[in-house]
Amino acid sequence: MKYIDLTMSIEAAPAFEGNKAAEFECLADFARDGWNEHRMAMDLHVGTHIDFPFHMIDGGKVQKDFGLDDFIGRGRLIDVRGMFEIEVPLDGVEVGDILLFWTGRSDSAAEDSDRYFDSASSPRLSEKFAAEIVRRGVKIVGIDSWSVDVAPFPVHKILLGGGVLIVENLLNLGALVGREFKVFVAPLRHESYDGAPARVFAELVKLAAC
Amino acid sequence: MKYIDLTMSIEAAPAFEGNKAAEFECLADFARDGWNEHRMAMDLHVGTHIDFPFHMIDGGKVQKDFGLDDFIGRGRLIDVRGMFEIEVPLDGVEVGDILLFWTGRSDSAAEDSDRYFDSASSPRLSEKFAAEIVRRGVKIVGIDSWSVDVAPFPVHKILLGGGVLIVENLLNLGALVGREFKVFVAPLRHESYDGAPARVFAELVKLAAC
Repeated sequence: MKYIDLTMSIEAAPAFEGNKAAEFECLADFARDGWNEHRMAMDLHVGTHIDFPFHMIDGGKVQKDFGLDDFIGRGRLIDVRGMFEIEVPLDGVEVGDILLFWTGRSDSAAEDSDRYFDSASSPRLSEKFAAEIVRRGVKIVGIDSWSVDVAPFPVHKILLGGGVLIVENLLNLGALVGREFKVFVAPLRHESYDGAPARVFAELVKLAAC
Repeated sequence: MKYIDLTMSIEAAPAFEGNKAAEFECLADFARDGWNEHRMAMDLHVGTHIDFPFHMIDGGKVQKDFGLDDFIGRGRLIDVRGMFEIEVPLDGVEVGDILLFWTGRSDSAAEDSDRYFDSASSPRLSEKFAAEIVRRGVKIVGIDSWSVDVAPFPVHKILLGGGVLIVENLLNLGALVGREFKVFVAPLRHESYDGAPARVFAELVKLAAC
């Protein structure tokens, strides 16, 4: 399999406090209308999604300020399972890389959302580490947890303020262990909002045959 | 530029009769709350989207029956500008290809949606041609118009019933003239509905240097 899906299905995505899970409404039914059609309502930060700077930065950039090249790049999996404050060496990380932090937390997100969203036990990047990520010119930070940090979200502000986009609620990062891969973040396209649900996947790089 | 975006922004996407355009509701405002956040509501077939078989086939397949490999493949641009009934040779088309029919109609979709959705003048694939597409093992048919045919949608039923997915309301197909490219259709991930908004883009294939 060349492509690895890293995206939660929106029906199964738990919602953070104050958010509502996605809702679907039937508009047309085959037996009655001859076709099936639905309407969807969802908060833009439920499920696998991208944060644009405007989410946390007053007057910050929105989706129209970015292009597809800002959403695609070489991926690097960083195993942080069991860590609380995340601070790791960035050996080999290059400008434009996409860092995926593997906490393992989203494996049980649908079954136990209280635990998933528990701020006291949530792993978080340190502010110092976030500043180093900005300095290194990383393109996107992704994590298989609900957030890269907890309220009042200083790490969000450091990353988004420093030009690094954030992708949260990833799934299935363990499938990337030991692989070279490229990451594609494909947000629902809008112009001017704070975040967007995204289909996120990895393309495995074929190693050259000897 | 290696990636070409073929997706309408959802705010600018016009809605077909009976559909509502996308709506955004403010949930949090920076001045009041310290961050910005929105909720979105949209019909699943507004803007650039994919149709799954369940849209038009009773008991048909839904998104969970497909994987990423079903959404990605070699693209072929077919210039059908000015044609009404679409029927063209499929020379060189191979199993698994993604055919993009370039009508040019979506260029003015946002400015004149009545004309865009006008069934009487809408180009449509012929039923015979749709059957030939199924026989050839094409993966996806995409078009820069609101539909591949008009009510009662026989071509939808032939394609979806024959295992060919449909992508509608594409944009910017003219940027692909003369290029070799791969198409990525990245639908918002859900399990069991009839269609999904999708980010659709082309990756240009670099020609080998002599």
